[in-house]
Amino acid sequence: MLRFDSDYMEGCHPAILQKLQEINLDKNVGYGLDPYCESARAKILEACKCPDAQVRLLVGGTQTNMLVIDAMLRSNEGVIATTTGHINVHESGAIEGCGHKVIPVKGVNGKYDMAALKQWLEAFYEETTEVGFEHYVMPRAIYLSNPTELGTIYSLAELEQLRAICDQYGFYLYMDGARLGYGLAAPGNDLTLPDIARLCDAFYIGGTKVGALMGEAVVVTNPGIELTRGLIKHRGAMLAKGWLLGVQFDTLMTGGLYMDISKNAVDQALRLRQAMEQKGYKVYIDSPTNQQFFVLDNEKMAQLSQHVKFDYITPADATHSVVRFATSWATTTEQVDNLMALL
Amino acid sequence: MLRFDSDYMEGCHPAILQKLQEINLDKNVGYGLDPYCESARAKILEACKCPDAQVRLLVGGTQTNMLVIDAMLRSNEGVIATTTGHINVHESGAIEGCGHKVIPVKGVNGKYDMAALKQWLEAFYEETTEVGFEHYVMPRAIYLSNPTELGTIYSLAELEQLRAICDQYGFYLYMDGARLGYGLAAPGNDLTLPDIARLCDAFYIGGTKVGALMGEAVVVTNPGIELTRGLIKHRGAMLAKGWLLGVQFDTLMTGGLYMDISKNAVDQALRLRQAMEQKGYKVYIDSPTNQQFFVLDNEKMAQLSQHVKFDYITPADATHSVVRFATSWATTTEQVDNLMALL
Amino acid sequence: MLRFDSDYMEGCHPAILQKLQEINLDKNVGYGLDPYCESARAKILEACKCPDAQVRLLVGGTQTNMLVIDAMLRSNEGVIATTTGHINVHESGAIEGCGHKVIPVKGVNGKYDMAALKQWLEAFYEETTEVGFEHYVMPRAIYLSNPTELGTIYSLAELEQLRAICDQYGFYLYMDGARLGYGLAAPGNDLTLPDIARLCDAFYIGGTKVGALMGEAVVVTNPGIELTRGLIKHRGAMLAKGWLLGVQFDTLMTGGLYMDISKNAVDQALRLRQAMEQKGYKVYIDSPTNQQFFVLDNEKMAQLSQHVKFDYITPADATHSVVRFATSWATTTEQVDNLMALL
Amino acid sequence: MLRFDSDYMEGCHPAILQKLQEINLDKNVGYGLDPYCESARAKILEACKCPDAQVRLLVGGTQTNMLVIDAMLRSNEGVIATTTGHINVHESGAIEGCGHKVIPVKGVNGKYDMAALKQWLEAFYEETTEVGFEHYVMPRAIYLSNPTELGTIYSLAELEQLRAICDQYGFYLYMDGARLGYGLAAPGNDLTLPDIARLCDAFYIGGTKVGALMGEAVVVTNPGIELTRGLIKHRGAMLAKGWLLGVQFDTLMTGGLYMDISKNAVDQALRLRQAMEQKGYKVYIDSPTNQQFFVLDNEKMAQLSQHVKFDYITPADATHSVVRFATSWATTTEQVDNLMALL
Repeated sequence: MLRFDSDYMEGCHPAILQKLQEINLDKNVGYGLDPYCESARAKILEACKCPDAQVRLLVGGTQTNMLVIDAMLRSNEGVIATTTGHINVHESGAIEGCGHKVIPVKGVNGKYDMAALKQWLEAFYEETTEVGFEHYVMPRAIYLSNPTELGTIYSLAELEQLRAICDQYGFYLYMDGARLGYGLAAPGNDLTLPDIARLCDAFYIGGTKVGALMGEAVVVTNPGIELTRGLIKHRGAMLAKGWLLGVQFDTLMTGGLYMDISKNAVDQALRLRQAMEQKGYKVYIDSPTNQQFFVLDNEKMAQLSQHVKFDYITPADATHSVVRFATSWATTTEQVDNLMALL
Repeated sequence: MLRFDSDYMEGCHPAILQKLQEINLDKNVGYGLDPYCESARAKILEACKCPDAQVRLLVGGTQTNMLVIDAMLRSNEGVIATTTGHINVHESGAIEGCGHKVIPVKGVNGKYDMAALKQWLEAFYEETTEVGFEHYVMPRAIYLSNPTELGTIYSLAELEQLRAICDQYGFYLYMDGARLGYGLAAPGNDLTLPDIARLCDAFYIGGTKVGALMGEAVVVTNPGIELTRGLIKHRGAMLAKGWLLGVQFDTLMTGGLYMDISKNAVDQALRLRQAMEQKGYKVYIDSPTNQQFFVLDNEKMAQLSQHVKFDYITPADATHSVVRFATSWATTTEQVDNLMALL
Repeated sequence: MLRFDSDYMEGCHPAILQKLQEINLDKNVGYGLDPYCESARAKILEACKCPDAQVRLLVGGTQTNMLVIDAMLRSNEGVIATTTGHINVHESGAIEGCGHKVIPVKGVNGKYDMAALKQWLEAFYEETTEVGFEHYVMPRAIYLSNPTELGTIYSLAELEQLRAICDQYGFYLYMDGARLGYGLAAPGNDLTLPDIARLCDAFYIGGTKVGALMGEAVVVTNPGIELTRGLIKHRGAMLAKGWLLGVQFDTLMTGGLYMDISKNAVDQALRLRQAMEQKGYKVYIDSPTNQQFFVLDNEKMAQLSQHVKFDYITPADATHSVVRFATSWATTTEQVDNLMALL
Repeated sequence: MLRFDSDYMEGCHPAILQKLQEINLDKNVGYGLDPYCESARAKILEACKCPDAQVRLLVGGTQTNMLVIDAMLRSNEGVIATTTGHINVHESGAIEGCGHKVIPVKGVNGKYDMAALKQWLEAFYEETTEVGFEHYVMPRAIYLSNPTELGTIYSLAELEQLRAICDQYGFYLYMDGARLGYGLAAPGNDLTLPDIARLCDAFYIGGTKVGALMGEAVVVTNPGIELTRGLIKHRGAMLAKGWLLGVQFDTLMTGGLYMDISKNAVDQALRLRQAMEQKGYKVYIDSPTNQQFFVLDNEKMAQLSQHVKFDYITPADATHSVVRFATSWATTTEQVDNLMALL
């Protein structure tokens, strides 16, 4: 059975496992105070060209989102997300669990529609000024994921527009980078890590889906955001053997490994897409990253399902469905070839 | 200046104030353990024909909503509301402050569209079954307000449909009755307090907007919902001089006073509506209760604003606006006559 | 039956009720934006000589404590209280309900022992520096009540010491003034409202126990504490008919009424104490305020209980008990005379 | 430099790393739905002789404690812990972050003193009955750690006593087993996993400190405790690559590995203790587990510090200090020999 149902089905890049093997019986200090974490943090800051920022290595994405957003907001404040945003639909209310409303705004293909967002904000502030701010959850941050849950990516110009909106309203800007590598490696992408660091108040470089066993590296560029070690522990998110995260990010951030393996995932995804298009399958959404969405005839879908796992998304019409194929850093040319042979 | 901008601008029914005067220097035990509260609770249970239910007298509506809903839900569960529901838009995230997501579902005129709600639930359960429940905030309760924020009311048949949906999915049903009297007094209403008590797991009889200085009487009919005194105190909602609430509800529930004064508000509102319609004003929404919504020409609106206060709601088109006029238990015939003279 | 079991058994000062009667059918804007609240706030700021502070009128004491403390703390921070502090034992975990630990420190007679507090802090910081701050709930505020739950009061010198400690450690200082009038009216008291406003970052002037139906007036002198209207609504603490609080504090703060009625409570309490002492009863704690604690022979206690209600506190020894008699602003000379006749 | 400063300084047992290596590029389903987790859960239930219990594999101890306790308590309820309990002092307020008070009760050597606990409970219920339960955080669970933070262990008879107390008061009993293996392997221990499963409503088998990279296996024997997957995700505690935990516990629970490596840690600790005693060092606390506490002359302590790291605990007197040496599953005879040579 071929498997293209998600991008976190394999362990980690072999270089990481080798390093973990080498140091396995060494004695390291806990809670991220070890030299591997220190080295990883330095390399991340260097890659992002933001020497004064703060880096926190955390275990998972939902945990990271709730911690960063909780650090950004006062008790009664909220965070804006597109209706399809991960924090709005797929995190079991983790943000609300910290007391904050996720304020949904309709987007397009998983991204903010800048004109619609501006219009929504104007109408919202007009209404709340009229009625009284105190009755509303006032937003204090904008959440975006890049790539989005639908594989699309933001351009530099779009991120600058979001920054301008944040500046206008006094919001923080936070980018969920669970698949950041796959976005940066996408053809047509014009965003760099230093751009993101310059434009966002916080963001994270995803490891779980990009070569690590687990781990996300949060970069907090705005010193006003107190994502303290105490807050991390308070939410049960402090890994005792913190060096496990340090080793992973130290390895990934060395010699361009993170981007190299990201590029592989994107290359394989685009090979698959090209093959699908050539065979006449309909592309559902124009994604330049590792997640590819197609519209399949239900019969074909059933037939394919016997040989390959992929993700069912939603019905397209009475006889067709939208499905997702995801590649990862570990996907091989052979695996994609085998899939292509089934089409 | 005439004022029709809200239904909680006056103090309380004079009979309440007289009683408070009479007992002012008596010594009463605190925290709702006094005989006035006991009497009020007994009269409420009698009116609702649910002798085994529990009555809690609380100070305000947001407080009540957050307490009842928090008592209904486990940490990660959510409550369904229409997008216009009070808990979704006007309570500054009080539900989220207790850790729970408000799950918005599109309604019609402030009410649930039963067919749309069923369809939404089916799609939601299909999706969450596919992806895994654990990633979603699973609903455990349905919130409705009756009358709604737009003045509309639920019929007995509709409430029975909501009950059936709740039974199917294992949800609690909770009715926010901030203006309950105005709904029960509406022409065409076929719901009674015993119906509501029979069909809802919890609901409240609103006092703040219907004759009291402050106060809402929650009726919890489902013994599985632990709206304990400890929880009330925990959320800072235990009034020290609880008899103030007892006296008010005891008075309102005696001799039909609550319904009598509710009827006055509705009668005055419908007189106004009739006059507006006769003068050719467009009714925005078909409300049989104390809130009346009209579409006004912006020029006329500006002119009226010099003599009467009302609530601006939203633009209707380039030259018209939606506005709300609210009557209350205290609105006099003379006040409405004066308003009608201005039209 | 005589009743000295608490200081919130009566309604409110007659002048308040008269005013509420006068304006009962006036139409006022809600949520504390009315002229009575404005006037009350101005008078409070004038009395405290802190024109730039912010005043919030809230309904009850637990609500007030949780709101002020939540506004002071980040998610993982805590507040120090004596083990007998109201927030530590009598508020059903309202502070914890906002996510914050109450850090108990042993006091003496309900007050902080300054030397012990300093020593505790030094040891705590030594330990947390050694182990790592992130594992501990770090305090960010000191809570005190004045008078304390045991009737004792702080001197100006003591409050200055607490301020110095707060300055040293970067803490906020917060005074719970549920019975503040009774403290200010105590013989030997050398604190004034301006002193308190100068030394505390926030405090409240209690109304519920001192002449009001309900209500506490929070004064926030430190502009860094965001006790916003939105936060108040978020916790369900925004009273719809806010003018009810405005009228009460406006009346109490006019013509010295608050202090006059406070003095009455203290005078009556001290008359009772003198009589008790003359009859040979043992005073349990040296309280100069409206709460008086005595050690009674259990037989005498049982006998007295047939004619007067008072508060049982704790066993003193096998045959004696500690009890509390509380007077209030409404206690009459005759009531105390009647009690004295029973001794 | 020799290191005995903690028991989580090494990676994991080599057998685990080998298995992770073997399956590294296999494709596994996420979120704990893989066969390794299934196998691990089955082996744990078998070892505990509680086939109907539920096993949850989580990443860390604080996370586990907050999740289990949050699943046990209603919003306003609390959990009892000894003053030295991990949740009371070393978890940055994680329990309070879920809204619950940790109710501290004085213990002895890290354990509950059964007579003192009973007396405390009797006095507490007497007081709260008198004053009114609603003002207090009522306990609903008892937390214990075994071994305790001070290395001591509970006997079967003691655990039965705690169970009886829980039955009397309607409490849940929860054992934090961060170092459970070291307790079970201690000389004199008479508790077994089936005993613990029978007497506790929930407990966890610690992996992080006993052979795993990370991971704790919670066993919930009381079906009334809803430690659902949704709650785990809600708190950001769902590991995407859940099989990493499955592989670790599956390995540890196979062929007695968990107990074998636990025994090594205890053996080495007791060798060290014997050597210390023979050299005349004073044992601070009688611990039969992997943590050993001694009283050192400050001069000797400074001298030792140049060659070996250990944990400073607290001053003993003006010239002596209490220190802790911790062994782990990975501690070698040679390491202890080297340490002994320094004494």
